[in-house]
Amino acid sequence: MEKILAFGEIMLRLSTIDNARLDESTEFASHYGGGEANVAISLANFGHQVGFASKVPDNPLGYAVKKHLNKYGVDTSSLLFGGERLGTYYLEKGAGLRGTNVIYDRAHSSFSEMQELEWDSIELFEGVNIIHISGITPALSTKWQNLMVQLIKKAREYDVKVSLDINYRGKLWSVDECGAFIRKIAHYIDYCSAAKLDALNFFKISEKKDAGLDYYYQAIAESYPNIKVFYSTKRKVFDAQHNQLQGNLYQNGNLYQSKMYDINHIVDRVGGGDAFTAGILHGLIKYDDPQKTIDFAAAASTLKHTVSGDCNLFSEKEVQDFLDTSGEIKR
Amino acid sequence: MEKILAFGEIMLRLSTIDNARLDESTEFASHYGGGEANVAISLANFGHQVGFASKVPDNPLGYAVKKHLNKYGVDTSSLLFGGERLGTYYLEKGAGLRGTNVIYDRAHSSFSEMQELEWDSIELFEGVNIIHISGITPALSTKWQNLMVQLIKKAREYDVKVSLDINYRGKLWSVDECGAFIRKIAHYIDYCSAAKLDALNFFKISEKKDAGLDYYYQAIAESYPNIKVFYSTKRKVFDAQHNQLQGNLYQNGNLYQSKMYDINHIVDRVGGGDAFTAGILHGLIKYDDPQKTIDFAAAASTLKHTVSGDCNLFSEKEVQDFLDTSGEIKR
Amino acid sequence: MEKILAFGEIMLRLSTIDNARLDESTEFASHYGGGEANVAISLANFGHQVGFASKVPDNPLGYAVKKHLNKYGVDTSSLLFGGERLGTYYLEKGAGLRGTNVIYDRAHSSFSEMQELEWDSIELFEGVNIIHISGITPALSTKWQNLMVQLIKKAREYDVKVSLDINYRGKLWSVDECGAFIRKIAHYIDYCSAAKLDALNFFKISEKKDAGLDYYYQAIAESYPNIKVFYSTKRKVFDAQHNQLQGNLYQNGNLYQSKMYDINHIVDRVGGGDAFTAGILHGLIKYDDPQKTIDFAAAASTLKHTVSGDCNLFSEKEVQDFLDTSGEIKR
Amino acid sequence: MEKILAFGEIMLRLSTIDNARLDESTEFASHYGGGEANVAISLANFGHQVGFASKVPDNPLGYAVKKHLNKYGVDTSSLLFGGERLGTYYLEKGAGLRGTNVIYDRAHSSFSEMQELEWDSIELFEGVNIIHISGITPALSTKWQNLMVQLIKKAREYDVKVSLDINYRGKLWSVDECGAFIRKIAHYIDYCSAAKLDALNFFKISEKKDAGLDYYYQAIAESYPNIKVFYSTKRKVFDAQHNQLQGNLYQNGNLYQSKMYDINHIVDRVGGGDAFTAGILHGLIKYDDPQKTIDFAAAASTLKHTVSGDCNLFSEKEVQDFLDTSGEIKR
Amino acid sequence: MEKILAFGEIMLRLSTIDNARLDESTEFASHYGGGEANVAISLANFGHQVGFASKVPDNPLGYAVKKHLNKYGVDTSSLLFGGERLGTYYLEKGAGLRGTNVIYDRAHSSFSEMQELEWDSIELFEGVNIIHISGITPALSTKWQNLMVQLIKKAREYDVKVSLDINYRGKLWSVDECGAFIRKIAHYIDYCSAAKLDALNFFKISEKKDAGLDYYYQAIAESYPNIKVFYSTKRKVFDAQHNQLQGNLYQNGNLYQSKMYDINHIVDRVGGGDAFTAGILHGLIKYDDPQKTIDFAAAASTLKHTVSGDCNLFSEKEVQDFLDTSGEIKR
Amino acid sequence: MEKILAFGEIMLRLSTIDNARLDESTEFASHYGGGEANVAISLANFGHQVGFASKVPDNPLGYAVKKHLNKYGVDTSSLLFGGERLGTYYLEKGAGLRGTNVIYDRAHSSFSEMQELEWDSIELFEGVNIIHISGITPALSTKWQNLMVQLIKKAREYDVKVSLDINYRGKLWSVDECGAFIRKIAHYIDYCSAAKLDALNFFKISEKKDAGLDYYYQAIAESYPNIKVFYSTKRKVFDAQHNQLQGNLYQNGNLYQSKMYDINHIVDRVGGGDAFTAGILHGLIKYDDPQKTIDFAAAASTLKHTVSGDCNLFSEKEVQDFLDTSGEIKR
Repeated sequence: MEKILAFGEIMLRLSTIDNARLDESTEFASHYGGGEANVAISLANFGHQVGFASKVPDNPLGYAVKKHLNKYGVDTSSLLFGGERLGTYYLEKGAGLRGTNVIYDRAHSSFSEMQELEWDSIELFEGVNIIHISGITPALSTKWQNLMVQLIKKAREYDVKVSLDINYRGKLWSVDECGAFIRKIAHYIDYCSAAKLDALNFFKISEKKDAGLDYYYQAIAESYPNIKVFYSTKRKVFDAQHNQLQGNLYQNGNLYQSKMYDINHIVDRVGGGDAFTAGILHGLIKYDDPQKTIDFAAAASTLKHTVSGDCNLFSEKEVQDFLDTSGEIKR
Repeated sequence: MEKILAFGEIMLRLSTIDNARLDESTEFASHYGGGEANVAISLANFGHQVGFASKVPDNPLGYAVKKHLNKYGVDTSSLLFGGERLGTYYLEKGAGLRGTNVIYDRAHSSFSEMQELEWDSIELFEGVNIIHISGITPALSTKWQNLMVQLIKKAREYDVKVSLDINYRGKLWSVDECGAFIRKIAHYIDYCSAAKLDALNFFKISEKKDAGLDYYYQAIAESYPNIKVFYSTKRKVFDAQHNQLQGNLYQNGNLYQSKMYDINHIVDRVGGGDAFTAGILHGLIKYDDPQKTIDFAAAASTLKHTVSGDCNLFSEKEVQDFLDTSGEIKR
Repeated sequence: MEKILAFGEIMLRLSTIDNARLDESTEFASHYGGGEANVAISLANFGHQVGFASKVPDNPLGYAVKKHLNKYGVDTSSLLFGGERLGTYYLEKGAGLRGTNVIYDRAHSSFSEMQELEWDSIELFEGVNIIHISGITPALSTKWQNLMVQLIKKAREYDVKVSLDINYRGKLWSVDECGAFIRKIAHYIDYCSAAKLDALNFFKISEKKDAGLDYYYQAIAESYPNIKVFYSTKRKVFDAQHNQLQGNLYQNGNLYQSKMYDINHIVDRVGGGDAFTAGILHGLIKYDDPQKTIDFAAAASTLKHTVSGDCNLFSEKEVQDFLDTSGEIKR
Repeated sequence: MEKILAFGEIMLRLSTIDNARLDESTEFASHYGGGEANVAISLANFGHQVGFASKVPDNPLGYAVKKHLNKYGVDTSSLLFGGERLGTYYLEKGAGLRGTNVIYDRAHSSFSEMQELEWDSIELFEGVNIIHISGITPALSTKWQNLMVQLIKKAREYDVKVSLDINYRGKLWSVDECGAFIRKIAHYIDYCSAAKLDALNFFKISEKKDAGLDYYYQAIAESYPNIKVFYSTKRKVFDAQHNQLQGNLYQNGNLYQSKMYDINHIVDRVGGGDAFTAGILHGLIKYDDPQKTIDFAAAASTLKHTVSGDCNLFSEKEVQDFLDTSGEIKR
Repeated sequence: MEKILAFGEIMLRLSTIDNARLDESTEFASHYGGGEANVAISLANFGHQVGFASKVPDNPLGYAVKKHLNKYGVDTSSLLFGGERLGTYYLEKGAGLRGTNVIYDRAHSSFSEMQELEWDSIELFEGVNIIHISGITPALSTKWQNLMVQLIKKAREYDVKVSLDINYRGKLWSVDECGAFIRKIAHYIDYCSAAKLDALNFFKISEKKDAGLDYYYQAIAESYPNIKVFYSTKRKVFDAQHNQLQGNLYQNGNLYQSKMYDINHIVDRVGGGDAFTAGILHGLIKYDDPQKTIDFAAAASTLKHTVSGDCNLFSEKEVQDFLDTSGEIKR
Repeated sequence: MEKILAFGEIMLRLSTIDNARLDESTEFASHYGGGEANVAISLANFGHQVGFASKVPDNPLGYAVKKHLNKYGVDTSSLLFGGERLGTYYLEKGAGLRGTNVIYDRAHSSFSEMQELEWDSIELFEGVNIIHISGITPALSTKWQNLMVQLIKKAREYDVKVSLDINYRGKLWSVDECGAFIRKIAHYIDYCSAAKLDALNFFKISEKKDAGLDYYYQAIAESYPNIKVFYSTKRKVFDAQHNQLQGNLYQNGNLYQSKMYDINHIVDRVGGGDAFTAGILHGLIKYDDPQKTIDFAAAASTLKHTVSGDCNLFSEKEVQDFLDTSGEIKR
């Protein structure tokens, strides 16, 4: 059985309730999440052995993070306690044509203020086959860019594959900064989320008229043959509760696409991308057929839109069942 | 004024709240319902004199059932108290593309464990013109199949018409068992819900290419001329909150159809079929025009989708008003 | 900076929660609102200096009204305290194909029982440039029709422009009564909401085949050249949570139209028209370009549908941002 | 089996939630209640045959009243529909040392605006043994004082006993008005709530130093020997959630007293007196022993303080069980 | 580090909310709990290595049990999935003088229907030092009495100490049945909860006038010298939210007593005894001083009364801090 | 009419709901508060003209602060917008014997990061008679100690009286640091909260056996004759919901004491001290009689314990009414 280690920051999300505006709210729903932790929980729900490495304050908010991860069976032996605070963000949930709005309050967190990798490498990577990271961690500071390079190189020393979700956040760093970092680590990556814009902006592929996504993936793969898998979603937003979503996977030189899902009556869109990534990793580990992988990942992401919170709450069997049927009362 | 007696099991429904998954829920909404009880309440709301015969435990859950029925003016003098427990089911409400899921916990209930009909027939049928039953009761056990035959025969002795909603549940008995039972009692039935699949499976009508629903109803009616009315709905499911619904009624050798309703933003679909059945019975009692009956029944069922709980909360006047207009603020 | 004074009744709205029917409700959400107060708050949110003149009881319900207005920075120095009660209405919120239903309980309110204008005119109009009124106040009683005529004439004495939202409510007075009153005050009006039906019914313009809205506005303007601006919305209702909306503005002899918004997943439609009116007044004060005005007003009204309560909770900047983009998570 | 008819106004109570102040509330809990209706429901819960005569508007608030009464098995065949509105009151629930505060909004209700007794006397009194009324109805208007005299005289014609709960409300009429009315009807009363202050104020008994409650009851009984039973509670208020309560009953020339209950952690005090009255009437009908009656009534009233809403939700058996034990988990 | 294995049934508790009566409830709060599982979670919160062995259905209710235990770090590798249903009980929470009431619906559960011990003994007891059981399991059936004897004997084979909480439930078996069973297994018990009544009823110790608790413990210990520790609480109930509690511990021939806690404003009393037991086991494992053990256990139980649900949510440090101070804001 | 300016930090408080523990919470109630802002709102509710000077971020959390203050009529023209974040704290509300626990997350806030006084002194002090500050602001940093000295000196230049609430918080600075600062500014203070411990620790008064509070106040006043008023509360904590409270006021060389309130069933204790301070300032401005002042202040503080949130929601009239009566239903 493969073991996956997810590595990154986890935050407290405070969301508005019952369509209230943020500055009118008298209550907030609380969830704990972060891209890499969401992937970890989703993989645990699919039946994998998963750990999560991060740092949270030694106070009840930190304990809540531990309970949240434990609940789904994610190993928290690499979750460190200490530092000043838990990163937080406020989310005004969208409704109809009003989009969702995020107010970050994540600076000075225990994780972002870490000055060096505080884990023992041997313990951290013991039994681990894949480490999953994202572009959010290096976006925190140049210090973290250096730490991530260290981490990735250590992972390769221990023969651990590296999965990267680029997850570019314009509020945290510039396109140029991100691109420089991505190219610096790209030779160490095995699996990589990337869409056309990522190819243009971060991998510096020139745009080619009428070229499909496979063209761009192939172009990146020529420079970085170590990247064996690319994946991305195509999302069309009608309103905050009605989107369309399709998954793309590039493997063995071919592009595989899922059906396009019409997702209406969305409950919570946050974590939809992480659910997709977890679906891809699940497929890479478990299925031989890339088409099966991309179908599973798109279905998993679609289901995520039907539950509150950041993490996907469906088992492998439930995702498979959904691939057959949906919307019916089962009785 | 006609008096209708509904006969069957009533259960506690524990539903998830705010789109939570069942295994993540910290609260459940409770409703009391069952196909026959739902029909009874809906008919009472339409202004009819209605009773409900069943058995519930002599504890607060049983008292809650009584209060629930009393609230709508349903006569509970044939509601018996005793036995071990109230049948229960858990309902994980669907959301968007995630379908609704039901976990039954109904075995060993006071009603299902009844060993013989515990009512005095004279009291039970006093003043009653129609008894409404469903295929769920005989599905509980072979014992209940025998009791239902007894009950139906008694009803005929007292000149009470028999209305049957087949309501096949694959989790409770097989197609063959159900068919055998249906055919056994079919000669005593006056009004019968049945769709094409029921005709094929339970009445053993052979499929005929391109034949309409009227063909199958006519075929059944040839074998069972006592069945004067057939009815069914055609439902198309886009997602858990978006369905389409159309009503069919076969009476006097003709098929009558309602318009097709596009039902979006569904609040609670459970009981939609029972609301339809109540609308049919209401029309049979009150209207001469079958088209008026089917239009009323389809409108009633459509409105049911806009309220929580199992039972339809609209008066005859409200259904009639809806047939004219909908969706506007009335002020 | 222009100062706007809104004048009219403000009521307590008691709304059903979680799609409950009114007669099944065990809780009500409370909001304070009224057409003119809603316009006042919306204008304050757009950054204008605004006051609201009305009368409420000297009890906690009246104090709640004052707090509600103060919260958004509306000046309440012309809000009088006294009289018997606060007008109330119950709103059964619609869901899907079930329309919203209103039960008025507004008779005998402190405002409607006022026998003469209880304000000192000098204080009331000090610094005021525009007074905004609606057709609901004269609909309360013939006494109020006389008081409104007095008020409007006083306003003109103080060089205050008059903005009228006709807002015809058939439950309060007849078409003939309303028309007679409208024509009586029409020579004093500067800005007027009016749709085609208002032109026909209240301004007695004859219908002309195939004529557009501009024809009717021009026809009114010929009789009442003092009315410099006409505006209205065109709304199509699919169900209680799905509408379409387009705004119309007639200024300088031309008709300007916004795009047609497809508004789905509606949170609360009440106050959508008031948000539109506030958008128009905002544009008239701030923008030179009528097209910009109507685009702003339609966008403002559309956003109103995404929040609970009667009043529009968006700043000028938020409405402008919405004109560019919508439905995306901003992070 | 005795049948009791309760007669009076029933109102909508809108209560604050979670200790909020009224003018800060964004939600209200709704309950339907009135002294006489509360007595009716409590008696129905004790197993008696009970009816309630009143008038409510023909709108959803009126239908809610009917459902509320039906739920507990109270006969609503004498509940009339019509008129303008349902009387309402707002209740700011007390907490600790902050007392509960009531804002009445009951004027112009369907019941209070009734111009003559709208019931057919024969139907109203059919099978009735006791009519229960209160001093609130004559407090509404002099018109209602006249109607009450008519009603009481009619009751005597039909050999119906009259139970009066004086229930003096200083906000509705003066002590003198009330006294004059009470003395006018006192010769027709069988059972009467009255405390020492009622004796002094309304029955004009002179105060006597050191005299006990029995002295005053005896003094009234000398003038009105038709009054066979007097009863009252003695309540001491420590704070809004901590009271002490003791019941008094005067029957056959003797005073009977319950134990003094120390009632802490009060859930809802409204209706505590009505629960006591219902307990007295229950005892008068069912028990021979006055001590048993007063013990039952005081226990019933004590239990009422543990549930929300106006009406007492305990069966005779539950009250009896409480007389033996309390506060323990039963498992 | 010691490892404790708790063994027994875990149920779904459905509790009333906001002081509602059970038959008036429209929502239930759900918690998962059982005496042994509660002890397990409490010990895990104190920092111990703990496992829980039981059987739950292979459906979302069973998965919820697993998540509940995992959240607190309880090992669920001995939690079996299968069988028909999860035992359930309904709890009407008491308020003030109204006591809490329990309606059991636990028959036919997956655990109670188990026909033989379904665990592999080697796996079950691997690394286990103490097994904690209660008298509820043998109360389920004579079959379970036999299975418990098997289990206890197996435990001794593996050198596992046995901790027994007698926890007599009169609704499940008789005093005689219970006593016979207790005496049958008493020679295998190391730690035993027992109060004076248990000594009299189950251990058949003769009552001795004025004898203290230590007398009875000594008497049992003479017959069963293997029982090294006895413990119990003394509880006085003023009302459902106000109790007093004191802990007793008999060890090394001496009786140790905690202070008497005055526990007011109780949030949830269920599980208070289990929290006490967990405190005792914690002290036995970690502290040398019996006085420290009983102080810790009584404090732990007291704190349990301040949180909802069955299980105690306090760490060892929090209990220790509480022993010093309470009721103050810490800021 | 006097105008008071309160100056200090205002934070977002996120409180647990329904007695949940912080690390188990899925929702938080949000309130905005801070000692000086709470005093401002309370004084506004007593009818005074009040302003609040602070700095909050230019995002929805900052706008919420403005709305909160506006709602009660507090002037926000000196509320600055800018900087990084709003200070936050998490409050686990106590229940019974479990004390309330606070987790601060206030570092790096917009207010604390202010580098110089950003107000124009002329505008800030225009029309102001009293400035109210607390010891929390200088506790933020030595920078803020300097800024506070500047501010206080500026205030004296503009003839503004200075009111200081020492409000010592051990988590923010040491006793020595606080004392040094207090003594540095003491010559500029007019009104000062101080208890015996403050006298000993911060004013370096030597303890004197058996001396009363007046001794210590007199001793401070000898060194700082400019301080004309001292005040403090004496609080005894039984549990988180049951306290006793008494107020002390030293004015004109005499000590005045309120009655001792027994405060049970506490709703929210936070802000009780601020309510007391506001009551003192109200009395100093409005009443000649110090006894009346201290009685009012203690009553105001007592009432604060009955409402949620940081600020006192009672008018002068309500506090006065409370001084006469409490705990009774007013109807």
